[in-house]
Amino acid sequence: MSTGFFDGIDPVRFQGAGSDDPLAFRHYDPDEIVMGKRMEEHLRFGVAWWHSFAWEGGDPFGGRTFERPWHPQDNMANARLKADVAFEMFEILNVPFFCWHDVDLRPDMGNFADNLATLNEITDYIGDKMAASRTRCLWGTANMFSHARWMAGAATNPDPEVFAFAAATVKSCLDATHKLGGENYVLWGGREGYETLLNTDMGRELDQMGRFLAMVVDYKHKIGFEGQILVEPKPQEPSKHQYDFDAATCIGFLRKYGLEGEVKLNLEQGHAILAGHSFEHELAVAASEGMLGSIDMNRNDYQSGWDTDQFPNNVPETALAYYQVIRAGGFGKGGTNFDAKLRRQSIGPEDLIAAHVGGMDVCARGFKAAAAMIEDGGLEAALAERYAGWDGAEAKAMLDGDLAAISERVLRENINPAPRSGRQERLENYVNRFV
Amino acid sequence: MSTGFFDGIDPVRFQGAGSDDPLAFRHYDPDEIVMGKRMEEHLRFGVAWWHSFAWEGGDPFGGRTFERPWHPQDNMANARLKADVAFEMFEILNVPFFCWHDVDLRPDMGNFADNLATLNEITDYIGDKMAASRTRCLWGTANMFSHARWMAGAATNPDPEVFAFAAATVKSCLDATHKLGGENYVLWGGREGYETLLNTDMGRELDQMGRFLAMVVDYKHKIGFEGQILVEPKPQEPSKHQYDFDAATCIGFLRKYGLEGEVKLNLEQGHAILAGHSFEHELAVAASEGMLGSIDMNRNDYQSGWDTDQFPNNVPETALAYYQVIRAGGFGKGGTNFDAKLRRQSIGPEDLIAAHVGGMDVCARGFKAAAAMIEDGGLEAALAERYAGWDGAEAKAMLDGDLAAISERVLRENINPAPRSGRQERLENYVNRFV
Amino acid sequence: MSTGFFDGIDPVRFQGAGSDDPLAFRHYDPDEIVMGKRMEEHLRFGVAWWHSFAWEGGDPFGGRTFERPWHPQDNMANARLKADVAFEMFEILNVPFFCWHDVDLRPDMGNFADNLATLNEITDYIGDKMAASRTRCLWGTANMFSHARWMAGAATNPDPEVFAFAAATVKSCLDATHKLGGENYVLWGGREGYETLLNTDMGRELDQMGRFLAMVVDYKHKIGFEGQILVEPKPQEPSKHQYDFDAATCIGFLRKYGLEGEVKLNLEQGHAILAGHSFEHELAVAASEGMLGSIDMNRNDYQSGWDTDQFPNNVPETALAYYQVIRAGGFGKGGTNFDAKLRRQSIGPEDLIAAHVGGMDVCARGFKAAAAMIEDGGLEAALAERYAGWDGAEAKAMLDGDLAAISERVLRENINPAPRSGRQERLENYVNRFV
Amino acid sequence: MSTGFFDGIDPVRFQGAGSDDPLAFRHYDPDEIVMGKRMEEHLRFGVAWWHSFAWEGGDPFGGRTFERPWHPQDNMANARLKADVAFEMFEILNVPFFCWHDVDLRPDMGNFADNLATLNEITDYIGDKMAASRTRCLWGTANMFSHARWMAGAATNPDPEVFAFAAATVKSCLDATHKLGGENYVLWGGREGYETLLNTDMGRELDQMGRFLAMVVDYKHKIGFEGQILVEPKPQEPSKHQYDFDAATCIGFLRKYGLEGEVKLNLEQGHAILAGHSFEHELAVAASEGMLGSIDMNRNDYQSGWDTDQFPNNVPETALAYYQVIRAGGFGKGGTNFDAKLRRQSIGPEDLIAAHVGGMDVCARGFKAAAAMIEDGGLEAALAERYAGWDGAEAKAMLDGDLAAISERVLRENINPAPRSGRQERLENYVNRFV
Repeated sequence: MSTGFFDGIDPVRFQGAGSDDPLAFRHYDPDEIVMGKRMEEHLRFGVAWWHSFAWEGGDPFGGRTFERPWHPQDNMANARLKADVAFEMFEILNVPFFCWHDVDLRPDMGNFADNLATLNEITDYIGDKMAASRTRCLWGTANMFSHARWMAGAATNPDPEVFAFAAATVKSCLDATHKLGGENYVLWGGREGYETLLNTDMGRELDQMGRFLAMVVDYKHKIGFEGQILVEPKPQEPSKHQYDFDAATCIGFLRKYGLEGEVKLNLEQGHAILAGHSFEHELAVAASEGMLGSIDMNRNDYQSGWDTDQFPNNVPETALAYYQVIRAGGFGKGGTNFDAKLRRQSIGPEDLIAAHVGGMDVCARGFKAAAAMIEDGGLEAALAERYAGWDGAEAKAMLDGDLAAISERVLRENINPAPRSGRQERLENYVNRFV
Repeated sequence: MSTGFFDGIDPVRFQGAGSDDPLAFRHYDPDEIVMGKRMEEHLRFGVAWWHSFAWEGGDPFGGRTFERPWHPQDNMANARLKADVAFEMFEILNVPFFCWHDVDLRPDMGNFADNLATLNEITDYIGDKMAASRTRCLWGTANMFSHARWMAGAATNPDPEVFAFAAATVKSCLDATHKLGGENYVLWGGREGYETLLNTDMGRELDQMGRFLAMVVDYKHKIGFEGQILVEPKPQEPSKHQYDFDAATCIGFLRKYGLEGEVKLNLEQGHAILAGHSFEHELAVAASEGMLGSIDMNRNDYQSGWDTDQFPNNVPETALAYYQVIRAGGFGKGGTNFDAKLRRQSIGPEDLIAAHVGGMDVCARGFKAAAAMIEDGGLEAALAERYAGWDGAEAKAMLDGDLAAISERVLRENINPAPRSGRQERLENYVNRFV
Repeated sequence: MSTGFFDGIDPVRFQGAGSDDPLAFRHYDPDEIVMGKRMEEHLRFGVAWWHSFAWEGGDPFGGRTFERPWHPQDNMANARLKADVAFEMFEILNVPFFCWHDVDLRPDMGNFADNLATLNEITDYIGDKMAASRTRCLWGTANMFSHARWMAGAATNPDPEVFAFAAATVKSCLDATHKLGGENYVLWGGREGYETLLNTDMGRELDQMGRFLAMVVDYKHKIGFEGQILVEPKPQEPSKHQYDFDAATCIGFLRKYGLEGEVKLNLEQGHAILAGHSFEHELAVAASEGMLGSIDMNRNDYQSGWDTDQFPNNVPETALAYYQVIRAGGFGKGGTNFDAKLRRQSIGPEDLIAAHVGGMDVCARGFKAAAAMIEDGGLEAALAERYAGWDGAEAKAMLDGDLAAISERVLRENINPAPRSGRQERLENYVNRFV
Repeated sequence: MSTGFFDGIDPVRFQGAGSDDPLAFRHYDPDEIVMGKRMEEHLRFGVAWWHSFAWEGGDPFGGRTFERPWHPQDNMANARLKADVAFEMFEILNVPFFCWHDVDLRPDMGNFADNLATLNEITDYIGDKMAASRTRCLWGTANMFSHARWMAGAATNPDPEVFAFAAATVKSCLDATHKLGGENYVLWGGREGYETLLNTDMGRELDQMGRFLAMVVDYKHKIGFEGQILVEPKPQEPSKHQYDFDAATCIGFLRKYGLEGEVKLNLEQGHAILAGHSFEHELAVAASEGMLGSIDMNRNDYQSGWDTDQFPNNVPETALAYYQVIRAGGFGKGGTNFDAKLRRQSIGPEDLIAAHVGGMDVCARGFKAAAAMIEDGGLEAALAERYAGWDGAEAKAMLDGDLAAISERVLRENINPAPRSGRQERLENYVNRFV
């Protein structure tokens, strides 16, 4: 029986680029075959429980603007209603995945035992709904940043009791993810960082965080969870500085604690922007290390210095992002989760649908452009040509040599290289042929 | 015989905080004993040949504003004159160290053989001057970013001939540093990065850079150079993205290529700011890994998005920076080099002296405040108290435990930690007692 | 009878720079005479009701961390308790002023009639408390950004009913400010701007805002309110773009709508930083137009892209700010309100006191340094010397001339000006003598 | 007779979207009729002499990378050769306009008389070339930022002799623009601002700048120049702060000095980004005041804090920009000048052509999308609906009313407006139908 929340909104259909129906897909046809595989299987869209169902429209200067029938979110009846509405939306969008934090699903109970009990109860409920749905769990995670207990960190807290509470919480969420058949488990350390170095022992906190993550990996193996463990870089906000600053920082951290073979990255456009990077940069960094796990797709307003988490809407940008994903071999167990939220003024149910439709279409269009570039091969050919000098035996040998020998050769052969064009504009024009 | 460049400017003396002489030290007395050691030995000031003598006052929108007797800098006679003036300034400031790039010392000759010959000639000349001076070489480095050949990188260039030229160049500069008794050798990769990912194979370039650095380390050992090898993080500029983005990125890179025991960091305030960090953050990151090698002291304008490289002038900020240095055990072979340049309108010789006097005084004052905080112990005591919970046996044991056991304990003991104040304002007030 | 909230905290006393009492003034002695006037009368400190009493410690990623006896803030009994605590703090700090929004003082009632009734009731209550206190009202304002009705603007709302509600609300707050003897009335347009230009008619909205402000000015005169009307620039947050972007934008707006003689600016450090300016820049802009009305003192974290609203703690920066204030003739009816909030982890009553003590001390120290520079006259003398050329008759005449005549003179006299040093480093060193 | 510089490059032709010729237009057909007018007449493309011909590939960390036959640019023979090549490129691109600074056209001679003579000589030469070409002058301007004499400002210089030199220079450039039939004259104040407030009298400098601009307007009328006078906002770089910070600041300045009816704005994407705005924001601000004069089209790298001046390549962004232009009534005498420069590694002649081809195509595609949105009317209809409430008589009357009357009505009618969706995502999706 329908909750009635989306009354009047039909399932969203692919109608082609010429459609002017505001609630139709114009580019995303889940069954379209691209590079030998259905679009749905390439893109693996996930809906984020938090922004789409738990967020109430507040910001630092104002309170709730959304009025949802599942408010207030402090009881299990409303948690179930919220889940009912979520699955109705999954069906309207025909979306293959969803993602969640514990606190998105259940009310906060104020202590661990009750949090655990309600989490188990609601994930049983969701499991039942999944049995009647084709939408699966892409990943789960623990919200260890909203409650006051986390204000000084979870794994990195100066108080070992908070560390303990965090460990218990992650165990419960990993168990729940496993139960729901999730394909990944994500850790985002919004409070794992500092507000001021004056009260922070950074080395100690990083060691705590490294040890914590190792325990998570151990536990994953213990319970036979075959999904990926992912950490999610973000430079700051809510903390002044977050330890998982960006992809390179996370990779360095993983290597330091010997976890580089066990943990990959969940990368987000908005977080990349806040760290001073383009999204494709972060993807390329992770890919160059074989650590590209999954993405949170959104966009950050370029003029705002905080996490705006908007639905993506720039096709050329998404094309460059998916180009990196395809080059890295595609998503595997990862996917395209929307860490995107409605604007605070977009208070109606149809806004929620429109946002996802637009975001999915932008991603599909960008993905197809990326695939076309891959198939055309123009960028790869240009790369091959640019680095061709390194294919020579002498060049390769040089990398096994030493400074003195190279210096001698430079003198002997009077090596004096002439600059060659980087051809950036030509390559940018090439991309514009496809987007 | 004097060059006359500084005619009318006397050696700068310490006159105490009450002095209103614009060219006197008011806080920097090299012989003052702080924490058991002379200030000069703590701070180890270095003068940067490039900004102070080679830079001509240009910016992206305008040309030379300085008129120096050693212009144009395209011949050896002027290179010698420049060196003469430099040593006159070292004496006026009574500064213990200097730092240089090859191109600061010699004219650019357009090919390696002539670059090498002129480098050897001018460093012989400088060596002779050093024999009559108490100022020593803190570090040398190779400028592999200004000449057109480096436009697409040095070690990371798509052209192996540029790699070869770079290897020969670094060898020559490391040799020269060794000859001059330098205590460190620095690599800053201003062009080791990219302008666009469209023409860049990041993984390949990082491998080239890792291999290059390993060769430098090998060569250092081969010639018996006992100084430190340092890399210098900077996020961007001139490149859109530089591989040595920040301290954490560099440390991750060093660990990936097995160089974390061989190479440390030379950190700069301005580069920290451009990377979205405070200077004390970068210092704390390096210190927490035992990789704090040396600093380039300057400041970056907080409202400018490029490297402004100004002389430091904010005492509270320098105090927080030196606090990290002292906590890390002091400089060892490193020091406080000024990577600071005059403002473009500051065209007179007295501006050059005033800038260094002001910068040294700000550093000295900040350093003394930091030392006083260390000796008072207030911040360390606050840290110890904040993390005291981790001293307990059960807390320590938890780090060797596993999620399941901890979860069980949380349930059994109903662990529900109460938030405790981070006391940030109180600690900030504490710092203000000392600065 | 005491509320007991500050039990154990004594009134804060001036103890001099040598004191290590964390809850003593070390620099702020209200009775110290500087430039012929008591410090208290110069600085005119105000406590902000919102951050100090109404804010609960939430941020975009987490909820309340402060536990106050006046929570929840949805009833009049707690509103009175909050006022009782506020006046206890005013006495502890011996602070001459306070500032408020309507919603800080009374609960939100959901409709205008009840908002009005409760505002009148609580301001009567506060008026009674003021009769027994020396603390007065610096300014009042209407919060027209938190409630959902304001989400698309107040005066600039596409819905004229919201404009009407805003007009009624401002009238009620201006009446209340007048009743309490407030010396200023402030308007901050946090939602007067846009989220996207796609749904915004900027010209129309600016006209609405201009007309609204004119009505406020008219009403002020009608009721005989002799305080200043102030607008407060901020570039963004919560809106993507706010019309009152910065001082120059506000001044242009006021001039466009003929209000430049009626309205001045309330400037905030944090807002200046977010707009890409230094605080002293914004003050200088306002001062150069005779529109410097008052300040909200705080600091913004330079590495965070949102409004961090921290208590000021950098003396050199506050000195440069107060230098502009003194040059502009001092505050008049304005003052130094703290738009500064505790860090979210600073949950104890003593944190609240420590923050104000530290902030007031930093301001006092900066102010005294600024006063000393004014009295020394070094900066003014340097300015006079730098622009001395313009004192000549020919130079002055040139400003009344025309291009052709000047061109002729340049040719005739072969005018070819030689650059002169801007002496920036020397002036920066000068400032460091005083801070 | 050809210079040979572009040997092997044919005139660029429109070949349609399906073309894979890297040097063909795929979207820009100058003769295509859009909204009743030829594309060429809508877009009015201009080539910038400075970036395309005068810039040598230097940046703050490196020197020249381009090797052009007209180097060095210090003699009239090379100035003529440069002009020859420019007109060859105009023909290859079939571009209707060019733009210039005096120093782009002639060598710097070091004194005004010789600068004037060479300017007159080269503009005569260019005038002769124009007689045989269809390319016209969009605008001219004076470079008053590169030579050392301008280091502390031109009109705002503390030295009145620099003001005089500036006045003579602008006169000469306005004369030359008039002679060449230019349709606009532009002033960009790169050095009209400050490096530090410590040595700056802002009010005095603004008065100088206001007076200077008034003289320019007077002289325009005197000589019968019927083109537009335009100022170009930029927030900073090369100066720390520039007085013409952004559109709103410039408009406020013009109004203060009574020039709002005489001067319009030349807006640039890159400058908007540096000021913290989107390009469409700046265009909307200018349009809302009737002061949108012309544009400099480029793009700024969103991760770089300096002026990257790249060729535009993001169609959705250019579409939003041209949407504002069309709404404002189109360009009139203004146009689309490229203030865009090659990347420093793009050293070949074909890079120069490719960059312009790509930039023109991106603009054309964006323009056509904008025109289609205008013709479809969807955005305008949404605006009309959103503000429809203001069409009512009572709403209009309210703007002529007063606070007291409105307040009374709010109470009497219990006005309590309900929030309505801003529908941002739906509007963003709408735009994506067209781009």
